[in-house]
Amino acid sequence: MKAKKAVVLLSGGLDSQITLQLALSQHYDVFALSFDYGQRHAREMDAAIAIAQKAGINHQIVTMKLGGIAKSSLTQSDIAVEAGDLEKSSIPNTYVPARNMIFLSVAASFAESVGAQDIFIGVSEVDYSGYVDCRESFIDAMEAAINQGTVCAVEENRPIKIHAPFIHQTKKEEILLGQQLSVDFSLSWSCYLGGDKPCKQCDSCLLRMKAFKEAGVIDPSYL
Amino acid sequence: MKAKKAVVLLSGGLDSQITLQLALSQHYDVFALSFDYGQRHAREMDAAIAIAQKAGINHQIVTMKLGGIAKSSLTQSDIAVEAGDLEKSSIPNTYVPARNMIFLSVAASFAESVGAQDIFIGVSEVDYSGYVDCRESFIDAMEAAINQGTVCAVEENRPIKIHAPFIHQTKKEEILLGQQLSVDFSLSWSCYLGGDKPCKQCDSCLLRMKAFKEAGVIDPSYL
Repeated sequence: MKAKKAVVLLSGGLDSQITLQLALSQHYDVFALSFDYGQRHAREMDAAIAIAQKAGINHQIVTMKLGGIAKSSLTQSDIAVEAGDLEKSSIPNTYVPARNMIFLSVAASFAESVGAQDIFIGVSEVDYSGYVDCRESFIDAMEAAINQGTVCAVEENRPIKIHAPFIHQTKKEEILLGQQLSVDFSLSWSCYLGGDKPCKQCDSCLLRMKAFKEAGVIDPSYL
Repeated sequence: MKAKKAVVLLSGGLDSQITLQLALSQHYDVFALSFDYGQRHAREMDAAIAIAQKAGINHQIVTMKLGGIAKSSLTQSDIAVEAGDLEKSSIPNTYVPARNMIFLSVAASFAESVGAQDIFIGVSEVDYSGYVDCRESFIDAMEAAINQGTVCAVEENRPIKIHAPFIHQTKKEEILLGQQLSVDFSLSWSCYLGGDKPCKQCDSCLLRMKAFKEAGVIDPSYL
């Protein structure tokens, strides 16, 4: 039997890396999709490439500079990334407006083009709900929009499903699953600053370090 | 009173040109948004620039090559644009999967970034429903997704509305409105082939010529 195709959003970060491994473990024929959107931490693109190469899968990188469009410290060099604070309740300035909506739209285009009916995205609403586009209510609404706006769904009765396997899981649980799936954590990149080594101070570093500690797993990238 | 801001999707074609003029006539402070997505008829980008310059408005062009992602004769040079046939009921090969979804997602990002709550798009489901992403059911679903996936809508009670003023209008009616609004039709570009002059044979040319004829209006671009 021919494997079912799936598009997996692969930022190069930890969540997308484990999501990819999960999709592979479920025997999907994976088409990975990454975005060079002018992010400060372009180093995550190197990570995405390394992860996709190791997995031996089809990998497309879409370049789309959002600096003039999306107000964020990740896309505009004149806004500094604010110091990490996992207790803070307000929206962090690393929020990129509608980023996951843009990514999922392009993923829908890619899925329809290659004949995939499954899209995977590694968002979670548990650890870090400052990002509204990581919540289940958004994922559900986006799936509904995709199924009104693609020929495969509207005309050919082949709807597209968005899988967000970690939407209700903590990062600790993700890491434990990743360990079971033999994920090489050294390949993914989380730091927003994109230097040679992780800064260990931004939200993304703090969240990753906290979760590995809780899971009791060694993170080779943060030794 | 300060004018309300609106993001207007401006492809450089006739529909977007009239939509822009309509938004300006309603006194919006307009932010025009165009996409260079590797389309065969890149000439429409020159048209978009000319239209925005004449209107004296803010204009952002997002470059995002979709050739490796979206299967279409408009994005892939090895697929020829099929001959125009307005009676044909099947999906034309100029269909770009999820194109309007991608455009509206970026428009949502732009709207949230500049503080706009209104997005205009010049789609119609009357003349040319071969494109599923030009139907009201899709526009409604996409508006719902935007309002689940943006901070302004979810956290700040400032939802975003998608205006598709021509969704139930024929192109003839659009042209008559454009005439009332003193639109300079010579500035917009419709032909899919993107040569020096319109081919007068592709679907887009045929539709434009038919509609101007029905409206009894002279089209300076097709003399």
